[in-house]
Formats: sequence, structure tokens, C-alpha cells
Amino acid sequence: MIKVGIVGGTGYTGAELLRILARHPRARVAVLTSRQEAGKRADQLFPHLRGHCNAVFEQPDARKLAECEAVFFATPHGTAMQMAPDLVAAGVKVIDLSADFRLKDAGEYRHWYQHEHTARDLLAEAVYGLPEVNRAKIKSARIVAAPGCYPTSVQLGFLPLLEAGEVDAQNLIADCKSGVSGAGRELKLGSMFVEAADTLKAYAVPGHRHGVEITQGLTAIAKTHVSLTFVPHLAPMIRGIHATLYARLKNPLLDVQSLYANRFADEPMVDVLPPGSHPETRSVRGANTCQIAVHKVSDGKSVVILAVIDNLVKGASGQAVQCFNLMFGIDEATALDAPALAP
Amino acid sequence: MIKVGIVGGTGYTGAELLRILARHPRARVAVLTSRQEAGKRADQLFPHLRGHCNAVFEQPDARKLAECEAVFFATPHGTAMQMAPDLVAAGVKVIDLSADFRLKDAGEYRHWYQHEHTARDLLAEAVYGLPEVNRAKIKSARIVAAPGCYPTSVQLGFLPLLEAGEVDAQNLIADCKSGVSGAGRELKLGSMFVEAADTLKAYAVPGHRHGVEITQGLTAIAKTHVSLTFVPHLAPMIRGIHATLYARLKNPLLDVQSLYANRFADEPMVDVLPPGSHPETRSVRGANTCQIAVHKVSDGKSVVILAVIDNLVKGASGQAVQCFNLMFGIDEATALDAPALAP
Amino acid sequence: MIKVGIVGGTGYTGAELLRILARHPRARVAVLTSRQEAGKRADQLFPHLRGHCNAVFEQPDARKLAECEAVFFATPHGTAMQMAPDLVAAGVKVIDLSADFRLKDAGEYRHWYQHEHTARDLLAEAVYGLPEVNRAKIKSARIVAAPGCYPTSVQLGFLPLLEAGEVDAQNLIADCKSGVSGAGRELKLGSMFVEAADTLKAYAVPGHRHGVEITQGLTAIAKTHVSLTFVPHLAPMIRGIHATLYARLKNPLLDVQSLYANRFADEPMVDVLPPGSHPETRSVRGANTCQIAVHKVSDGKSVVILAVIDNLVKGASGQAVQCFNLMFGIDEATALDAPALAP
Amino acid sequence: MIKVGIVGGTGYTGAELLRILARHPRARVAVLTSRQEAGKRADQLFPHLRGHCNAVFEQPDARKLAECEAVFFATPHGTAMQMAPDLVAAGVKVIDLSADFRLKDAGEYRHWYQHEHTARDLLAEAVYGLPEVNRAKIKSARIVAAPGCYPTSVQLGFLPLLEAGEVDAQNLIADCKSGVSGAGRELKLGSMFVEAADTLKAYAVPGHRHGVEITQGLTAIAKTHVSLTFVPHLAPMIRGIHATLYARLKNPLLDVQSLYANRFADEPMVDVLPPGSHPETRSVRGANTCQIAVHKVSDGKSVVILAVIDNLVKGASGQAVQCFNLMFGIDEATALDAPALAP
Repeated sequence: MIKVGIVGGTGYTGAELLRILARHPRARVAVLTSRQEAGKRADQLFPHLRGHCNAVFEQPDARKLAECEAVFFATPHGTAMQMAPDLVAAGVKVIDLSADFRLKDAGEYRHWYQHEHTARDLLAEAVYGLPEVNRAKIKSARIVAAPGCYPTSVQLGFLPLLEAGEVDAQNLIADCKSGVSGAGRELKLGSMFVEAADTLKAYAVPGHRHGVEITQGLTAIAKTHVSLTFVPHLAPMIRGIHATLYARLKNPLLDVQSLYANRFADEPMVDVLPPGSHPETRSVRGANTCQIAVHKVSDGKSVVILAVIDNLVKGASGQAVQCFNLMFGIDEATALDAPALAP
Repeated sequence: MIKVGIVGGTGYTGAELLRILARHPRARVAVLTSRQEAGKRADQLFPHLRGHCNAVFEQPDARKLAECEAVFFATPHGTAMQMAPDLVAAGVKVIDLSADFRLKDAGEYRHWYQHEHTARDLLAEAVYGLPEVNRAKIKSARIVAAPGCYPTSVQLGFLPLLEAGEVDAQNLIADCKSGVSGAGRELKLGSMFVEAADTLKAYAVPGHRHGVEITQGLTAIAKTHVSLTFVPHLAPMIRGIHATLYARLKNPLLDVQSLYANRFADEPMVDVLPPGSHPETRSVRGANTCQIAVHKVSDGKSVVILAVIDNLVKGASGQAVQCFNLMFGIDEATALDAPALAP
Repeated sequence: MIKVGIVGGTGYTGAELLRILARHPRARVAVLTSRQEAGKRADQLFPHLRGHCNAVFEQPDARKLAECEAVFFATPHGTAMQMAPDLVAAGVKVIDLSADFRLKDAGEYRHWYQHEHTARDLLAEAVYGLPEVNRAKIKSARIVAAPGCYPTSVQLGFLPLLEAGEVDAQNLIADCKSGVSGAGRELKLGSMFVEAADTLKAYAVPGHRHGVEITQGLTAIAKTHVSLTFVPHLAPMIRGIHATLYARLKNPLLDVQSLYANRFADEPMVDVLPPGSHPETRSVRGANTCQIAVHKVSDGKSVVILAVIDNLVKGASGQAVQCFNLMFGIDEATALDAPALAP
Repeated sequence: MIKVGIVGGTGYTGAELLRILARHPRARVAVLTSRQEAGKRADQLFPHLRGHCNAVFEQPDARKLAECEAVFFATPHGTAMQMAPDLVAAGVKVIDLSADFRLKDAGEYRHWYQHEHTARDLLAEAVYGLPEVNRAKIKSARIVAAPGCYPTSVQLGFLPLLEAGEVDAQNLIADCKSGVSGAGRELKLGSMFVEAADTLKAYAVPGHRHGVEITQGLTAIAKTHVSLTFVPHLAPMIRGIHATLYARLKNPLLDVQSLYANRFADEPMVDVLPPGSHPETRSVRGANTCQIAVHKVSDGKSVVILAVIDNLVKGASGQAVQCFNLMFGIDEATALDAPALAP
């Protein structure tokens, strides 16, 4: 069994890591930290884990974490970059679910997260943990930055078209709808039931942290600068991201369906739906899958791509475990192969 | 008191007409028809109207309807075009909430609604009931076609930019999210709670009846052919439409905020929010208001417009009463001036 | 116009007061206080009130409040008892929506609210603002304690049976389900969307503040000590309380339906449904009505009463305005006569 | 691999059987029938099963079903009693999720289901599939009637107290709240999103089919006639039942917590929570677990039991697979051991 540590296990991504790893035949959560809940059993905070998880929160202890073989960071930004360098130096493989190692440009990081990056060497080394793009690098990485939830859905959705250079990269639109769990377990007025139920709104239109992460990723995929309009929306649901993507096709005759089917044919976690489909977020609830459908519109001038993920699974903890599996040479789908829970 | 008839009052738009007219000081529901529920009190079907509505459903009777001064059709398509000609001929003012008189092209009507239009003269005469565009014509109309819910939100959202010719009319995108009441009170699997709750999906991407209505309206506004990509989504909420509109600006320096503020300054039912705002559907729940916010993005190359309405009010029954008020020379906001119900 | 002040207008009951009073033909909100939001317009916090409310939050100022004719307290407990004595002495009529003047026994107050009551004289004088029980006293009151939401539903539900002495007062059960707005606008983990959506739970079974208030009220109604088991539940909805009440009938032949119909025949805000009915919380959403249905079960040995209210209206701000109307000799239903908003 | 047939796999319990059996290492779905969907892949109806289920609906064929080792009926009532006798005679083990074999009294069956029972011999033989009560009999049964969802929660909740004879069996109350999936996948107005969202109501207070099933089960447990008041409620959530049970204790000093802890100590699917707990339905979402908490109230005169299950799992398909495991000598928890999905 691989000894695993989780730093900051009290948020939703921490709880999902515990849920997923509870069924992992090769991993054992040896250390689970939380400054605030130290001494409490995890299943006291998360009673759905009763009978599946004996972990107890403890104060973070660098020495104990260094004895793990892998450490997940499920912390707010700013923590992983403090603790990861020593862990990596000690030979621990690090998977960071926070934003600390996602943006390659430390200036962008400072701009969007309002503090200096203090681990620039490691930042340069960190591999962006999107297996469909970076599988080989992830396998040999010492530190992986698990992508954000919006970035996962948008990058997977645009991937085949941008790789193939088939769309105008200067005019991409991502209209994304997220469940409220995307805002985390912190207390915020906008995340209250009474504020978020039975209503829908856009937010952060002038600029969202994930916008720059997406643009960085799409630029890497397209191998040319891309220009993206990204509008996130808060929808009254618990989990799920629905990305509706718009692009202008260069060739109205392009067989977009085949392009997607071929590109993802060997990807275990991406499911291209039959022509004419409309994926629903619930079809991937609790699963590490991205379901995608493509539609040509406006006489072939434009394409609409519909991509859904569970923001807490393929958009966070599931993808992190997928990376973990790759890093340890385990079958990629291990502990990630249960069907979604619907309805 | 103006004698009013409602044909087909058992759907959601019928119930909303009853709710709104219950507070109308100048109108009285004299006839309420339903083939299926004839003999039953309306407040038996809609117990929220107890104490506010004494209407009883009866079989439709052309003679009794002809004695009304105004008749609303809250029926599925196909009914109004059968009954309206005689009513109009008898001097009754007709407000049709169905699709029968919205599409000016009878061929398009046949294509989208799968049967012939049988009242083409009246179709030619019918006024499209969007007061912000057609106020003068509505005042003198004999028959008004109340716009669909999506079309109301999208047309109001694009109106100032298209009127002013400030955007590329060949590349408009409307990404719309609707509450489930937009699908009506008919039994459909996709409208079931278990199917629609805690999930989100796009639908009808290859083509939606409202798409052609919107294009017709936008073309009239722009005075040039427009090309629109329209993607409707079903969101897990009861009421509300959130239209997220994308267009390419011709002039990056255009003051879009002022354009909107000025265009709607005298409109009682359109509320342009301060710069930087993000409207929520709940802010107009139960109200006849459209709240709009505008954002320039991508260095002024693009504009994002956010427009919210209550699909059953400004998107249906409220707008119908607004037209009724105009047709009878009553203050436009009569019975439509209560604040929204939030949270 | 009666000059009205609202202390603490940033919570849900404050927002509801603003919504209701916006349509009150005899009242004008002259002062609206909030320490935290002073300087901000109310419709900035509550955009659904745009166009209906010009009030601006200001720091509480005892002198300005004393110039009002009536002051509503929509504050957490502990504030009204500090400020009310001077206001009452200055001739201002006070309606307190907090718990400060509900419990007649100051010891109970200390036990449940964890601090001493500092206005015991006024506590003795305060009238419990349930018009269906205390209408005459409310009319002449200087200070009214508006009942809690659970207490309103449970007292109205048991009222006829307890007044008539027809049930075993030693074995009453109130199983209540509340929407999340009952927990207020304060940030609490349990009130977060992700925590409260798509789930249901009981809470505070060992003891809830409203339990003692209900028992006090029921005892006053029954004129004998009552014993009540009260179990509140949190249901995934915004507004609404559904009280399911159980009692043992003394006489299996009692005509419970008539007892209720007669008792509430002249009550404008209580609506006894026909036999066999099952009220829904949405039927009173936004309205100041209590809908009640009664069912005899177990061969007449037991009775089940179903009572629904909107916790923010008849359970809080609507009832407060109803008391205000009574205190100022205005028709009781003024500003409270709009139909509920459903669906 | 055990060859399994599912008759009527298009409802929610059918879909859950497919989801659960997809992970069963010893079972293989060999036949899946639906008259309406014959020829369609199951994952076309249920896209969350894509990649996990290759089953294709076919017309029911008695011969093919008789070649299975076990057949599940996930049909409306009336079907299983037609087909089960031949299957049992052919040596096929039958697990019926419908109501056909639940009520031992064929007269009661006729009364509640409005048609004659046509398989009375098999009815007499059928074992009621509540493993916590009937484990031994289930192991050797040829036909098992899987209990209803409400009955499972109420019987497990009252079990220890009634077995021990510690409460007044003549005065039991079960106030139950169910998610909408309990009403099935058939089209019904009351199951529509717009009708069921953001509201709550009781239903069937005068009498519900599950009431007689519960009373039969409780009577068997108590070994004396019991009298139960059962009030089901529809709550705006997809899955889950929350049973709030009330009983009068004979002995105020009884240690109820220990009684429950001991009774269920060896039960793999019943989880007695620590004293003072309040279970939530989401804590068992997707899991085959019943979480129970007990509270003494009213100075020990009464007890309140809170029991939650997932109505589609422990209340239907999960329990059916649990019975299947027992009938085939497989570990009881096989395919039923995944943690719940929360939030």
C-alpha cells in the first residue's frame, strides 16, 4: 500500500479524495491534516464516510508528511508552495489541487492571487495534470498541478479543434455553468442556499482566475496565442460543470464528430457522445468522466461543443487521483471506475 | 371594468394571467375556458389563488367569448388561429400568448409547428407584442402576438446594439438558460423533478422554434439580416431566463453602458444595471422587469450582455397584460408594478 | 403617511419588511439602519427592490428613530431590549421581530438566549403579536413581540382544538419542516447551498428555542399546561414552513373540520381548506396566509393537522405589518393582500 | 457468473439495479426486458451508465428468463404475480421489487391495488425481504418480496423498541419525508419539477398503500397488533427518505441508545449514530445503508427516532441485491459497499 498524506482535508475536494481513496486498493491515507479540526475523526465532519474511513485530522507535521510516498494538497492557494519544496526534496510525490503550481508565469500568479510566488523553481518544474494532454510528463513528474474545474472542461472541449488548428483561435467563447460546490466549503454569502437556490447568474465577467489558466492551457495546445471570452455562471445545483463552447470553423465541411471521436478514442475518461447528443451534468455525477457532444451550426460556419464534468471529480479530486495513478505506474482508472450516480 | 376572456387557462401562463389580473383595477375575468377542467374552480387547480379568484373553468363558447372586450389565448399553438378571426371580426381585442401569430412567414410556421397556418390575413395584421420595439403599433392593434420567453430576453438584450448598428450582425451568440416552467405544464419526461433537478443541459442545439422568432425580431431591429447561434439550456429552477449574449463590437471605444442606459431610459420595464453588475434571475421573479448588464471584454473587441426576465411574466403573461394595458389606453404598468419576490 | 423606522434591515426579515411596506399606502420607511451597510442603498443589497425602495442604510441614531411613529426591529436578539424602552417612552410604537419580548419568563429567556433580559417591565407589558389570538390587545399595544415562524404555524394549527379542550394536551406532537431562510442571512455552514440542497434532516431534537415559545403560547390558549414534542427539520427549499401536527382526540365523533372552519371563519389570514386537502408551502409563498387542513385518523382516535405558512411573511414580516396595521387602526390586510407566487 | 434477468428495467429501480450490478463480481445481466424500449441500449436511456452496461432492452420472453438463475422484477404491480409462478417452478430465484408479494392478505392486496391476486400459493410462500428481520428465511427463499421504501425506513426505525416491547404499540407515529424519485418515472403532474421544487406537502393522509405494509411488518415484529399513524410527505429532493418516528416509552429510564446499538451491532447495513445525532438523507445517497439516531424527549416519556435511507437503494434496488446475495450464499455486502455520494 502506498502511504498517502492529505493536507487540508476539510474542504469538498478533501472529502472527495477521502471518498475516492477509500476504494483504492493500492493507497492508504496515512496522514490527514487540518489545523482547525485536529483531533476529530473525518467521518464526524463527513458522516457519509462512516464505515469507509478511519482517518483522524491532525496538525500538519512536516516530518510525518515527509514519510508519505505521496502528498495531496487540498488547501487554499498559498499553502502548497510553502510546503511542497521540502516534500519534493525528500522524495515525496506531490499532487497539488490548489492553484499554486498552475500558472507558469509567477507574475500572473501574483496578479490573480495577490501574493508573491515563493517556489519558482518548483513552479518551473511542475507538470500541469491534465492526462489527456500531458500523460507522459505526469508519469515521471515529481510535482503535479491538478487543473481547475472550469479549465478541465474547457480545455478538453476545445482540445481536438485547437490541436488540429481548425478554428479561429482569436475568437473562442466559453460559456460555463457551475454547481455551487465549485465555490468551496468556505462561508460566503453567495454560496448560501437561500442566495443560490432557484436562481442563476453570471459572475466575474470582467475577469476570473480560471480565465488565465484556461488561456495558458489553450495556447499550449494550439501552439499559438488564443483569445478567449470566458463567462462563468453559478447554477442552482451541487456538483457539475456544463461548458458550452463556441468557435468559428475554418472549414465548413470538417467532420467535427470524427475529429473528436478519433482524438479521444483511447482516452478512458473522455466519452464522445453520438451525433446530436446533449450531455447532462448528472450523467457524470460522482464519476471521473468528461462527456462531450459536438454540433455544427450556422451552415458549418460555427461549432458548438458541449462538455460536462463533475467539478469535484474530473474537475478536482478524481483527476488528482488519476495523476497519482499515473505517477505510481498504477492503472489509470483505479478507484475511478464506478458509474455516475443518477438520477 | 373591462370584460376579459382567457382561453386555455390551465397552463402556467394561464395561471399567471389569473394572478396578475386579480390585482388589475380595470379588468375582470368574465370567461375562463378549459375543455378538460370545465366545471372546476380555478383555485382548485391553483390553490395559491384562493381568495383572489372566483373564476370557474367552462367549455369554450364562441358567443360568450365574443361578448368580452379582450380575449387572451393561453393555449398550445393551433387554437388561436382557429378562434381569433371571428373574435377580431366581432370587435374583440385579442392577445395571443401562443406561437400562432409570431412568425410572419407562414412557411416558417408550417416548418416549425408542423401544420398549415389557417389565418394568414390576420397573421399579416398581427402586431408583435414587444412594447419596447412596437409600442405605438400595439396601442392600435386588433390582435397582438405576445413574444416567446427566449425571444423577449434576447431581443431586449441585443436591441440597443443592433439598432445602432454597432456590432457584427453576422456573428451573434445567445446562450440562454431557462427554468423548467418554460417547458409548460404538459407531462414530459424531461420536465419531471427527478430528471431536471440538480443537473443542467443544453437542448435543441440543432434548431429551436424560438430561434427563428428571435432571428425575425433581430432582423427587424437591425434592418439587416442577422445570423445568430442560439443555444438554450434547461437549468434546475422554476422560473427565470438568463440570456448571456455575445457580439463583436465594430468600435472598441464605444460606450456601451451609455448606449443601453439611454436607449432604455424611458422604458418602465427595462432596468439597466450599473457598470460591473451581474443580474440574477431571482431579482425579477414574479415581476415584469428585464434587468440588463453590459460588459466589454477582450480589449473592447467583444461585448457580453446579461439579461434576465421571469419567463412567465415579462416572458409571457406579464408582457401580455402590458400589451393589454397599451391596447386599452391604460397606464402600461397597471397590475405589473409589484416588486419581485426574492429570495 | 406614517413614519416608520426599521432597525437592522439587512437580514431576510428586513428585506421582506421593505418589500411589503413598498406597497403600503399609509406607511413610509423614514429610517433604515444597519451598522455594517451604512451609506449603501437598500436596493444595492437587494436588487429585487430596484425601483421600489429608495431607502439608504444609516447608522442607528436613537433621536432619529424616536421621531418615527413606529419602529420595527429586525435584529438578532439582544438589540430590541436595549433600544425599545426609550422608544416606547417617547411614544413610538414598537414591533419587535426578534425574540426579545416573546418569552414572558425572563429566566427562560436567559436560559435559551444566554444573557439577562434588561427590560423586564416592558417584557411584562409586551403583547404577543398573534392577531388570531390577541387582536384586541395588539390594537392598543405600545410594544408587540412578533411571534417566531415555527410558533405561528404550530399555534394556529392547534388553536381550535386546544381552545375547545378537545385533545389530550399532554401528548401533542409538532413535526415541522422549514425552508432554509428560517435560519437567517448569517453565514453558517448548515445554511450553505451545498450542505442544504437535495437533502433533509431534523435538528435540535433535544431542544429548540421555539419549543418553549410554542409551549407558552399553547398553554395560554389551552388554559392548562401542555406537553409538546417539537421536532424541526431543515428542508431544501427557500421559504415555507409545513407543520404536521398530531394529537389524540377525546371524542372520536368530533367534527374537526367544522370546528376549524367556524373558528377561523372571520380570520382574513387563515384559510381552512376543504376536507381531504393537503396544503403545499408554495401556495402561500410570499403571502401572509396560513392554509390549514385537518384529517381524522385511526378511527377517530387521532387528528392530523397540516398547516403551511411562508416563514418570512406570516411567520415574520407580514405578521409584523399585520400587527402594525392593527396598532394604527388601518385595515388589517393593507399591503398584505397580494396572491401568493406559485409555481 | 450468475445469470440474472431484469424484467421492466426502464424505471428508476431498474436503472439502479443496472448501476449496482455493473459492479457485482458474481452477477451478469443476461436479460433485460422492456416492452416499450425493446431494441434500445440501456445506456441510451441512462447515459450515466455509458461504459458500464452493455445490456439491450428486449421483449419479455418467458423462455429466456427461465434460463436465468435469478430474475428481478422492477415492474409496476400486477406483472410479477403473472410471471413469477412459472419462473419459480423452473428453479429461478425471484426477487420482486413491486408490491405483488408484500401483503400476506390477498384481500388487502385487492383493496389497495384494485385487482385480484392471481398467485396466492406463491404469495403464501414469499419471504419479506428485510434482511435485518428475515435473514435466515431469505437465504433459503425461492421468492423474495423486496420491501417498499417507506416500510424499510419505518420498520428498521421501530424494530428494536417493538421487539423489546418497550413502547405503547397502540400509539405509533411515522412522519416520513420522501424525495420525488419515490413516485417513480411515470409521468404525473405532481412529479413535475415545477410542481415539486421549492415546496413541501403531505399527501395520502387518509391512507397510503405503504401504511398497511408497514403495519403488517410492525405487527410481525411486535408480535402484537400495532396502531400506526403514517403521514408521508413529498420533499423537494431527488432521493432519500427521512423517517421521524414517535412512540411513548413504557419505561422512562430505558437506555434507548444501547438498545439500538446492541440490536444492530452485527448488521452491516444499519448504522446507529452516536447520541445526539441528526442523520441527513444525503449521508446515505447512493448507499445501501440506514443511518439511525435516537432521542428521548419529554422527560423520557417519549422517544423520537430518526432514520434515513436512500429510497432507491436500501429502499429498493440495493436491498434487492442484498437479498440476492443472501439467496446465493454470497457475502451480503457484495456490490453494496461503496461510500455514499455527498455532498
